This record gives sequence, C-alpha cells and structure tokens, in this order.
Amino acid sequence: MGAATSIRTVDAGEVPAQRIRSAIESLLDERCRLLFVRHASPAHHAALEGLPYDVAFHPECALIVVGAARSDRDGLVVVVSAGTTDLPIAEEVSVAAEALGLRVRRVGDVGVAGLHRLLFEKETLEQADCIVAIAGMEGALPSVVTGLVSRPVIAVPTSVGYGASLNGLAAMLGMLASSALGMAVVNVDGGIGAAVVADRIVRSRTSQ
Amino acid sequence: MGAATSIRTVDAGEVPAQRIRSAIESLLDERCRLLFVRHASPAHHAALEGLPYDVAFHPECALIVVGAARSDRDGLVVVVSAGTTDLPIAEEVSVAAEALGLRVRRVGDVGVAGLHRLLFEKETLEQADCIVAIAGMEGALPSVVTGLVSRPVIAVPTSVGYGASLNGLAAMLGMLASSALGMAVVNVDGGIGAAVVADRIVRSRTSQ
Amino acid sequence: MGAATSIRTVDAGEVPAQRIRSAIESLLDERCRLLFVRHASPAHHAALEGLPYDVAFHPECALIVVGAARSDRDGLVVVVSAGTTDLPIAEEVSVAAEALGLRVRRVGDVGVAGLHRLLFEKETLEQADCIVAIAGMEGALPSVVTGLVSRPVIAVPTSVGYGASLNGLAAMLGMLASSALGMAVVNVDGGIGAAVVADRIVRSRTSQ
Amino acid sequence: MGAATSIRTVDAGEVPAQRIRSAIESLLDERCRLLFVRHASPAHHAALEGLPYDVAFHPECALIVVGAARSDRDGLVVVVSAGTTDLPIAEEVSVAAEALGLRVRRVGDVGVAGLHRLLFEKETLEQADCIVAIAGMEGALPSVVTGLVSRPVIAVPTSVGYGASLNGLAAMLGMLASSALGMAVVNVDGGIGAAVVADRIVRSRTSQ
Amino acid sequence: MGAATSIRTVDAGEVPAQRIRSAIESLLDERCRLLFVRHASPAHHAALEGLPYDVAFHPECALIVVGAARSDRDGLVVVVSAGTTDLPIAEEVSVAAEALGLRVRRVGDVGVAGLHRLLFEKETLEQADCIVAIAGMEGALPSVVTGLVSRPVIAVPTSVGYGASLNGLAAMLGMLASSALGMAVVNVDGGIGAAVVADRIVRSRTSQ
Amino acid sequence: MGAATSIRTVDAGEVPAQRIRSAIESLLDERCRLLFVRHASPAHHAALEGLPYDVAFHPECALIVVGAARSDRDGLVVVVSAGTTDLPIAEEVSVAAEALGLRVRRVGDVGVAGLHRLLFEKETLEQADCIVAIAGMEGALPSVVTGLVSRPVIAVPTSVGYGASLNGLAAMLGMLASSALGMAVVNVDGGIGAAVVADRIVRSRTSQ
Amino acid sequence: MGAATSIRTVDAGEVPAQRIRSAIESLLDERCRLLFVRHASPAHHAALEGLPYDVAFHPECALIVVGAARSDRDGLVVVVSAGTTDLPIAEEVSVAAEALGLRVRRVGDVGVAGLHRLLFEKETLEQADCIVAIAGMEGALPSVVTGLVSRPVIAVPTSVGYGASLNGLAAMLGMLASSALGMAVVNVDGGIGAAVVADRIVRSRTSQ
Amino acid sequence: MGAATSIRTVDAGEVPAQRIRSAIESLLDERCRLLFVRHASPAHHAALEGLPYDVAFHPECALIVVGAARSDRDGLVVVVSAGTTDLPIAEEVSVAAEALGLRVRRVGDVGVAGLHRLLFEKETLEQADCIVAIAGMEGALPSVVTGLVSRPVIAVPTSVGYGASLNGLAAMLGMLASSALGMAVVNVDGGIGAAVVADRIVRSRTSQ
Repeated sequence: MGAATSIRTVDAGEVPAQRIRSAIESLLDERCRLLFVRHASPAHHAALEGLPYDVAFHPECALIVVGAARSDRDGLVVVVSAGTTDLPIAEEVSVAAEALGLRVRRVGDVGVAGLHRLLFEKETLEQADCIVAIAGMEGALPSVVTGLVSRPVIAVPTSVGYGASLNGLAAMLGMLASSALGMAVVNVDGGIGAAVVADRIVRSRTSQ
Repeated sequence: MGAATSIRTVDAGEVPAQRIRSAIESLLDERCRLLFVRHASPAHHAALEGLPYDVAFHPECALIVVGAARSDRDGLVVVVSAGTTDLPIAEEVSVAAEALGLRVRRVGDVGVAGLHRLLFEKETLEQADCIVAIAGMEGALPSVVTGLVSRPVIAVPTSVGYGASLNGLAAMLGMLASSALGMAVVNVDGGIGAAVVADRIVRSRTSQ
Repeated sequence: MGAATSIRTVDAGEVPAQRIRSAIESLLDERCRLLFVRHASPAHHAALEGLPYDVAFHPECALIVVGAARSDRDGLVVVVSAGTTDLPIAEEVSVAAEALGLRVRRVGDVGVAGLHRLLFEKETLEQADCIVAIAGMEGALPSVVTGLVSRPVIAVPTSVGYGASLNGLAAMLGMLASSALGMAVVNVDGGIGAAVVADRIVRSRTSQ
Repeated sequence: MGAATSIRTVDAGEVPAQRIRSAIESLLDERCRLLFVRHASPAHHAALEGLPYDVAFHPECALIVVGAARSDRDGLVVVVSAGTTDLPIAEEVSVAAEALGLRVRRVGDVGVAGLHRLLFEKETLEQADCIVAIAGMEGALPSVVTGLVSRPVIAVPTSVGYGASLNGLAAMLGMLASSALGMAVVNVDGGIGAAVVADRIVRSRTSQ
Repeated sequence: MGAATSIRTVDAGEVPAQRIRSAIESLLDERCRLLFVRHASPAHHAALEGLPYDVAFHPECALIVVGAARSDRDGLVVVVSAGTTDLPIAEEVSVAAEALGLRVRRVGDVGVAGLHRLLFEKETLEQADCIVAIAGMEGALPSVVTGLVSRPVIAVPTSVGYGASLNGLAAMLGMLASSALGMAVVNVDGGIGAAVVADRIVRSRTSQ
Repeated sequence: MGAATSIRTVDAGEVPAQRIRSAIESLLDERCRLLFVRHASPAHHAALEGLPYDVAFHPECALIVVGAARSDRDGLVVVVSAGTTDLPIAEEVSVAAEALGLRVRRVGDVGVAGLHRLLFEKETLEQADCIVAIAGMEGALPSVVTGLVSRPVIAVPTSVGYGASLNGLAAMLGMLASSALGMAVVNVDGGIGAAVVADRIVRSRTSQ
Repeated sequence: MGAATSIRTVDAGEVPAQRIRSAIESLLDERCRLLFVRHASPAHHAALEGLPYDVAFHPECALIVVGAARSDRDGLVVVVSAGTTDLPIAEEVSVAAEALGLRVRRVGDVGVAGLHRLLFEKETLEQADCIVAIAGMEGALPSVVTGLVSRPVIAVPTSVGYGASLNGLAAMLGMLASSALGMAVVNVDGGIGAAVVADRIVRSRTSQ
Repeated sequence: MGAATSIRTVDAGEVPAQRIRSAIESLLDERCRLLFVRHASPAHHAALEGLPYDVAFHPECALIVVGAARSDRDGLVVVVSAGTTDLPIAEEVSVAAEALGLRVRRVGDVGVAGLHRLLFEKETLEQADCIVAIAGMEGALPSVVTGLVSRPVIAVPTSVGYGASLNGLAAMLGMLASSALGMAVVNVDGGIGAAVVADRIVRSRTSQ
C-alpha cells in the first residue's frame, strides 16, 4: 500500500527554471517516487531533460509529472466540471489521478445553464469510487452533484471570475456552507489535492 | 402609477414596542401609504391597535403591514425557495408582494437535494413577470433557476447556516459571482426589497 | 421569445488570442446565437476575422460582440453613470443592451458633485423600462436614482478607486445595504449581466 | 484655549453601574473637566448622584455628560442625518457638541428618498463652521453633502442595517472611498469623536 | 445502496421546540429515513415523545437522531480530536457515524502538546476506512495526521477559541491551505457532514 | 468663497497618456479651475504641453497640478509623517495644499523610533489651522499627534508595508478605531483628499 | 527547568460550573501542575472548593489559578497598558506571570493622551527581562514602547472598542504590521499566552 | 547594551536602485549602525559599491546587510522551517541574526510530512535561547515546536501557497489562535523582525 505522503508538489511559480532540476533531485528519493510541478512552463520542462525519471509535461494544465505512473488502474474517478474556464483544473485533476494509477472519466459543460445534461450522466456518476466536482464563480455544481448521487464528492473551487468571486473564495465558502451532505472541499484550484484524496479513497477500498 | 418611494420600512428590532406607534405615525403621510415593520413581535402589533390604517401582522415572517393593500392584482411573482430554513423569507417576499398588489405563486423545497422537482415547475416559472429565488448556505438555487428559464430573477440570500456561510454573505457573494446571466441580487434576508423590485418590474410593464 | 440562456460570455483575459476562435466556435450553436468576449484586445479581434457570424469590436469597453443583433428595438434602457472612470462599464452595458435589441439612452456625469443634474433627467429616467445605474467608490448613484423615480434599477458597482474601495467591493456592499427600495445589484464591473437582466425585464413585458 | 485631550470617554457597556462612579472619579482631574459616558443606562445615571460635577443624562442617545458645559457658543455645527435609525447618533453628536460649547442646528430625514429636501437646506449648510453628516447602510449622504457645499464635512457611519451593511463597515468603507473631496471620516457610531473634531475646527478658527 | 440524500438535518436553533415535531414529520418520508437535529435541547427531545420513529437524544453534543440505525457495521471511522473543547464535535461525528451504521474508534487529546501520543496510534489510524480529524484554533491536527498515515482524512474545523481564531475560520483556512496532500475539509463544526462523507466512502467500497 | 466642488482629480493609472489631454479639457471649465492628476508619468506630463493652463509636474509624488494656484496664502497646514516610505504621500499633501493656496510646514521622520522628536515640534503643531498626519503599517502617528496638541488632525493611512498591513487597511482601521479624540480619517493614500479638507477648514475660518 | 507545556488553560465560557471540577481533575497530573481558568465566575470558583490544589480566584480579570505558585522570583516583567478598558487584560498578564514565579511591575494609563508619561518610565522599562505591552483600538502603545527601549516586547491586542476596531483585530493587525523592530504579538486578549512567553524568556536566561 | 532602535530596514521594492544609495546614507548615522535592505536586486547591490560601510548581498533571500557585524556571538538562535518554499525566509532570519551577532543553527524540512524528524532535533531545540519557527500554508510547525520544547518561540508566517492561504494570512491567524502556550508571532514574511526579537531576548539575558 503506497503512502500518499510519498507524493510531493513543487510550485514552479516559486522556483525559476534554472533551479527546478536541483530542487526536484533533492526531493525525489526512496520514499518519494511521484512529484508534481504546478504552474510549469516549457522552460521548466526543458530544464528536466535527461532526469533519470519519467517526465511528462501537460501544457494544457501547466503540470509536469515526474516519476513512474502506477499500473494498477482499478479505481474510477469521475471528474465533473461546469464551464470552459474550469477546464484547466479538470485537466489537472485528471492528469494527477491517472499518474496515481486511477481510471478517469470526464463529464464537462454542466454549469448552471446545462444542469439538465447532468441528469443524463447520473449512471456514470453512480459508478465512481469518488467524484471530483469542479466549479468557480457561484460554485453550485458540487452541491447539485452531491444531491443527485450517493458517491463521495470532493469539491474543487476555482479562481475564475471577478469581483464578488474573490478569486475563488466565494465558491469555496459556498461549497463549505452547502446544505448538501456528502461532500468535502479542497483548496481553491487544488486539483492535485483532490486527486490524492480520491486516490486514498480508492486505496482504502482495495487494501482491506 | 405609484412611486415605490412611497413605501417605507421600519425595523422593529431598533424601535421598542412603546415607541413604534409614534414612529409609524410620523412616517405615514400623503406620499407614503404603505409601510412594513420587520422583526415585529406581538407587542409591536398590540401597540398599533386603533391606528387609522389597515394593520396586518404576519407572525410566520415577523412582519406587520400597515396601509391599504392595492387591488390591481395583474402581475405574477413566482417565489422559489430551497429549504425549510428559507421559508420565513419566502413568506416575507410573498406577504410584501401581495401587499403591493401582485399575485404570488410559491414553489418550495427545491434545494440541492430536490432540484429535479424544479424541472416539473418550469412552466410555472416561465409564466412569471418576475421570479424571486431564495437560498442560503451555498445559494445555488437562483443560478439554477436563471439557467432554466428566461424570466428576470431576483436572488435573495438568507442568513441561515453557520461557519463558512458567514451569516449569508457566502450565499450573497456566490449569487453575485454567478455565471448565470439574467439575475440580480438584493441584501441578505432582503425579502421586502425583492418584492419592491418585482413590483417595479410589473408596473414598468403596465404603465407603458 | 428568446431564452437568455442562449447568451454566452468568454473572458479574453483567460483565453489567449490564438485559442479564442476555436473556443468561440465550440460555444456558438443552434441554441447560442449571441456571445460576448470581455477584456478583448485587437489581437483577439483579428483572430476572429472570417468567422461566419457578425463580429463587432468595441475597443472603448474592450468588448467583442459575436452574433446577429436583434432588430426588435422596443424596450428602453437608461444607462446612468457617475464619473469618467465609470464610462467603460457604461459603454459595456450600452453595447450589450443594443446587441440584445434594446434601445439605450445615456445619462452621464451625475456623480456626487453633479447630482442636481440628475433632477433635470427625471423625465427621461421615468420613461425607462429598466434603469442601469453605474458607480464606483462610494457607489451612491443607484440609491439616489432609486429614490428619485419608480422604475426598476439594476445597480452595477465598478472597480475604480483605491484603498477603502476594495476594488469595487465597498460600492457593491453599499448598494446591497442601501435603504433605497426598488433596486437589485449585479457583480462588480458586471455590465453584460446588467444588460441581460434589463433584456429579461423588457421581454417579460412584451411576451405577455 | 482648551486642549481636546482634556476630554475623556467611558463606555458604560464595559463598566457595571456599581463601578462607574469610582471609574469616573479617577479620570476627572485638573486636566480633564469634561467626560462622556456612552451606552449609559438609568442605573449608571443613578450611581452618579451626588457627584460634585454637573451630570446630565440623555436617554435618547444613552449618553451621560459629566462636567461643566462651556458658555462660549460661537461656532456653528450643522448635524445632517438620513433616516430615523440614525437619529440616536445625530443626538449624540448634538449633545456632545453643545457640551463642548458649540451651537448646533439639525437637518434630518434627508436620506436617499428625500435628497431633494437637502437642496432647500443648502443655505443652512453653507453657514456651518463644520458639518457632521450621519448615515448607515449605503452611507451616501455625506458624499452628497460634500458635493453640494464647500464646508468641511465629518462623516459618521452608523451600525444600522443588516447583511451587507456589515454593522456599519459598508457605510464606513464607502465614505472613505468616496470621490467627494472635502470630507473625512470617524469610526462607526463615532458621534462623540465627530463632535470633538468639529470643536477643534471651530477653536482653530477662534484662537488665531 | 442507500442514497445519502435520504439523510436530512434540522437546526433546532432555528426551530422552537413547539414546532419541531411537525417540522420533522413533514421531512421524514419514504426517501428520508434518518434525520439529525442539531443544537437540540431537552425541550426539543420532549416534544418528540411518541413519534413513530426511533428517537435518541445525545445531550453531550446536543444532537437528536431520528430514524432506525442501520445494522451493517462494516466500515471503520477513526475520529481524532485535539483538545477538550473539541470533544462535543468529536461526539457529534461519532454519534452520526454510528447512526449511519459505521464502527467508530476514538483517539483524543492529541493536540499540539500531545502530538507524540499520535505516533502510538499510527496503527489504529492506518486501519480506518476514513479518518475524521477535528481541531480548532491553529487547526494543525488534520495536517499532521494526513502526513502520518495514508488513509483519506476529512478535516473538521471547530469554532472554539477567540480573537484570531475568528470563530473557526482561521482553522478552516489553515486546513484548506495545508500542504498535506490527502485531506479534504467540511464546514466549521460540521460533524454530521463529515460523518456522511465517511459513510459514502465506506459504501463506495462495499457497493463495488 | 471657492466651492471645493470646483476641484477635480484624474487618476492617470486609468487614463493612458494619449487620452489625458482630452480628458482634462473636458473637465476644466468655468466651475473647475483646479485639477490634480494622480499617478502621473513624464509621458502624461509631456502630453499636456501647450495646454492653456498652468501645468506643474511633481515627479516625487507623481502628481500633475493643472490650473492657477491661488495667492491668498493665509492658512497654515502642518504635514507630519512617520517614515521614509510615507514621504511621497506627505509630498502629495504638501503640493496639493500649496496649489490650494495654503502655507505648508513639514515635520518628518517622527515614526515610532523617533516620537521624542515630536515633542520638540509641539509648538509648531499648535500653530496649525489643520494638521495632516501620515502613517502606514501600525499607523500610530496621528493618534499620538492628536493626544499631544489640540488642533484638528486629518489622518492619512498609507499603503506601505506588507502582510498584516493589508495594503494600508490595518493603518486605516487603527486610525478609525483610535481612542484619540479630535481626528478624522481619509482614504488610504488619500493625500489630495486630506489637503482639500484642510482647505475647507481654513476657508471656513476666513469666510466668517 | 520546567517545560511550559505543563501549563494548561480552560475557558470557563465553554465549561459550565457543574462540569468544571471534573474537567480540571482530568487535566492536572504529574506533568501539568499549573492551570488557568479564563472567564471564570464565582460559581466556577465555588465548584472548586476542596480541590487538593491551591485555588485562587481573581475576579478583576475573571481568572482562577489552580496549582502551586513557584517561588523562584528572579525575572522581571513590566506590564504596560494604555487605557482603563485594557486593565483586566493587564491584570490577567500580571496574575499569570506571578503564578509562573515572575516579579511584575505595572505601568498604566500611558495611552495616546499620556505618552509623555511613558518617558518618565523609561528606566523601569529598560530593567525588564521582558515587557508585555497591552493596547486596544489603534494599538499604538507596543510600537511606541519598542521604539523607546531595547528589551523584548510582547504585544497583546485587546478586544475593547467598537466599529473599526473589529473586536481587537485592527489593533492586532497594526501591531503585526508595525515598523517597530523588536516586538512579537499574541492573540487578542491573550494575556496568559503573553505571560508564558515572558516566562520562557526568563527561564531561557536562567537555565544557561 | 545596544538599543535595537539603532537598526533600520529599507524595502528595495519601494526605492529604485538609483535612489538606494542616498536613501541609505541619510539613514545611517551615529545611532544607526546596522541596516537591512529587503527585496534587494543585484542592481541595488551595485549601486552601493564604495559605500564606507560593510555591504553584503545575500541573493538567496534578496537581502543586503549594511554595517559592521558584531563579534559577540554568545546567543544561540535555532531557525526551524517546514518546506522548501519557506527557505528564503529561513535564510533571511539566519542572515539577520548573524549580522546581529548571534549564533544560528538551522533545522529544515520538518513540515507536516516530516514532523517525526522534529523529535530527533529536540535536544538542539532545547539549547536555543530563542527558537524562530517558520511556516506557510497551514502554519502548524510553530505550534508543534512550542508543544515540544520549553524555549521561547517566535513564529514567522510566510506568504507561500495560494487560495485559502490568503498570502500568508491563514498561517498568521492560525499561529495567533494557537492553543500552544509559549510563542508569539511577527508579520508575514517578517524574518528580520523575528531576528531582532531574538536578539533582544539574548541581550536581555547578557545585560543582567
């Protein structure tokens, strides 16, 4: 059973490209075999060439995955997102979940103007071991999903929007205040965090 | 056409029962023929006995209506609410709207666990001149209603909930940040304010 | 009667010019025939050349309108603004309202130092089906307008100012807290949102 | 010329009636000849009976004035307030200003629904050495007054209202963010503070 | 597989004892067979006598459980709490989890002054299907637990403390901002919400 | 007696250099003979060459003054500032006050490490018609000055500092919450606002 | 050398009098020989009669001290406070420090109107091993003390004041943002916390 | 005994390189013999060439130290930090402490995933005259350290993280709200401030 504590993240926004390689080398060891670099640029990716680990760059969510992907793809995460602006975080969750060895199914464009489309996906949602629901602005989607199905829901607020959205804090507060029982919340734009919680839920199941 | 400025509100929480009568007498005049007393207690109601105006006490929303109800009931407001804790504000909107001469239809219990019930009410909602949608906590309902139908939606956040609901501010921020185009927001627990906006929308129509 | 849900917005600040064309093509369909691109640059405009829709760029409010303007110009929106810094949002409301098929009249420069000029415009304001009142900083204008006339007022706080204006939040809170009955509020800088509410109010009238 | 530092305030909300007398005795001395007790109850007043100073209780603003009123009534403060809920603070300003030896004129009920009445009072306002303008909720009044006349304006936000008024913080922020040049702000419900600033302005004049 | 949406909560703080019985009767039906009354007093409990459901009052966490407890006790939740002030919420989680049919083990008094005691409980923690970690003030415990073991952690901030604890918001923000990967957060004092998430995680496992 | 409403400000941060000239021309008229451009760059200054008004650029506070300076220098403003980071705002107050026709005396470097130096300046401070006290971070200076002398004090919080200074909001809140009676507060970095209040105080004196 | 972790606090506001005795008995053991009960009432004190520890009730700061006072009174703490409303917290610091075995000297009434009195106390302040400086509202005192002397200063914000004081948060933020180098801050009203830091500083010295 | 008030800081972010030299020359004098330039760039360093003081640039924490380092290295500060993102602030504390004449020992990488490593360092920590504990995000480290040893702990929140970390405010609030007795807090990223407090604690010891 892999301890999730063996996973690390680095924020490329705080480490210039010329320092990223040594930063990563000092973090990867026996215990840590999987590492995510958020906010990564092509320059960061280039700086990692030749590193003795698998290195995959996902520009659509600015994420670099360092380390060997697991092969035991036995758990299913359904990643639900509301609008086009939430797609990069949905991508981050999906990439991270797959790197952790989970199967991922995506349900998109089910924002407030398309909630009826969610009803058609109820069966898919009920098959998930864990649902990750992503939304910014009013952040309604995770509450609606939690009310619709009986699977554990991890809600990810995103920092899209302006004014009253307070860079995602309004969505985050709304999700925490939600009357929908059965969901829990991670940080704004916390896609990797949501994927690791989903991974722990699945592994909790398989390790019994 | 009645100017909405002829409507006044008094907060009984800031005026003791022994002072409410004189406070109201000083406010009602030629221009102001309709007055709402919020947070009213039976003691406030008793203190108004014998006042030469129609006085109606609505204990379920702690509201006293002072003044003659209009009879031109030609506009329809649909009042939609999410949970049982939002019912007093739904009642406040309804009582105030009827005092303003509007017809009111109520749609209740369509919170996040019952959004599918909202689909059955789509026809009712589309007949409204104005929809008032009420929700606390995550405040998702007005966004969902706005995405479902094409009528103007006035959103009323309520102060129910605890912790991250911040006494209704989370719902208020979420509604303002919403990606649903076609709704506008009034103050937390602002039932009377919503009713007056609905009244102006209807009268805007009939005065042309 | 057109459902407002057929209107979409894209924030060019979150979509680079090289991706804007495909983003828009994926959103425009049978249901969505009108789309607004906020924070648009000339580069975004250039990237849309040859798109099989009407495309109009309004640099003064950084807005691109994609889709055919409606011709049924039967409703009147009066757009009132306080100072010169609020003009881009007033322009955004006007451009969006006209794209929705509404007639627009503008009343400008009626900030706190020019409120007496507002009195001369009372007749114009009373002819509106809906008034959109725009103000930043202390945000007093919508309250004053609401107290002056009896038409529905949609208040738009703007993000101008510094320090205590908290990027428009002070104006937004003041508008929501206002004692003026008959107005509702949209997000900070929410010009398009205000226009769509106005459109729904007018169409609510004409569809009866 | 009396130093304003010789004035003290005590908050009766933090000092029980049985301790108020000794608290005051320890504060009044050669330097301090004037003391205000805010939030005072009749019990606090009773506890001060027989104190060798003038003691006046003003229940309408819950204020006790301890000390001899000055007689040099040569400066004029005009106290302007918006709604009925702001009256206790208007009273606090007036009582404190008179205790400081200033002449006071009151202009009331000029909230957003009565701003035209303000125009009739322009001459009165222009005669003031200092204007104290009081408002809660949207807090628009001080900005409007500052735009109308050329006298120094001290703005006092009040804690009336609910929800988005944030106990007076929304009004306070709006006043500070105001585009109206020529006014400064004191704390929420800071009536005594406003009176002392007015006193310093007048004495600044007479001491030259 | 039981849908978690069949669970409801009522806040007794918003429903007086004389209305609680009818409120509950209107909520319990075919779909909802389990209902929690938070902030319940003995008066609320007395008002439910004779209700045709199992009714259990837990005064130590002011919780009434209405409905039949499930018997399939196959999942294990470990409830970890920091200080004595967090015990009522730990109790709420435990009572709710048992009502949902889960086995519960408690680990207490492992606040910042007793974190070494946590090390002795590592084995217990690793056996959990889900860990619920409860903490107020600095809210460090869930982060420490998440770093120690590999099970999914649901963090519950509590409203104990004063000043900078901001009624639990400081703990809530710290938990969301945590660098510990593998935990998600529910509302301040959200014990029931955490129990329902734990239940969904366990049932996700057993339904495969 | 000049109405302060004849003074206008423009924020160059919101008006590009190529548009500043026409923006100013539209604002200067019979009533407005004095205009301040905040956040001005040399490019803004160059764009105003040849304008038929006095134009003075003060790069040390990024301020352009447009219009004829008054010559009746009969009032004295003492501008007190704490640290070196507050000097640009102290300069803004001074330049604006002199443009308004006031005499200015400066007292600098009397922050928390140099408060004893303030005692030596007591005589200077007592000669002021109005004191403008400027401070960021902990914002203690205006309170100390108000406790030391009996002149009206206008406090200007500045946006220097980091972290808990919240861009000047901590200083602003502290000044408003101050127990020092006799001061009022303007917006963060509101140097021009403070100068106009000082001007109104002086003119209040001379117009009697 | 006594580990400070052997000290515990209980908040009587969260433990009713009938439960306080057992709560304390469960906390006092070999390691914990000193315990503070904050917000204690006479009823709490009465409930502890006969407890086999020294029990002292200090009603002026609502504090009960349980446990043997140490006798090694070798360190000096100077407790400086601003106004009368800060006295209960100054008392709490003093009582707690003495219970920890420290000598305490008090300097009071040196708020913004009496800072010159602070100069006379400079010698006393310089003799301290640690200074605890207490202030609410604008919270200026600790900054001034830190600028005046070279001893470590622990700043305690207090929750007195209203409006912009935000229950002590304004003072707390100002102290943290202070430009005065040499002080650190504890929680609002955190008198016991400050005393324990002082104790650690002194013991750090004596244990070398 | 050196007064800490003889130490000054300059924020290079607010002083361009071409002005830094004169700014520093005006600040260094008889009393101030040590000055820190935060946020310094190589350009700032170059501008100081030839200054008649020791000038040392520490690019890893963007700090320039101006002035002669003291040689009396008799006090020990242990600087503990959580993650790699906190290293620049740990470096700032260390550089500043050494410039003040203190010995520094570093303990790193003891974040929530490595707290067990902290147990191995207990002996080192107990030897400190003062511990400076640095953490961002959930900010748990200082609380844990304070619970583990009996030395005074100065907690430094850092501005790393995103979303709910609120630029370090979440960590700051959590540290202030902490139940761990024996620590005090400085501003977000306040490394120099923490070093000066540590210096005062040590000198308090040696001057007796």
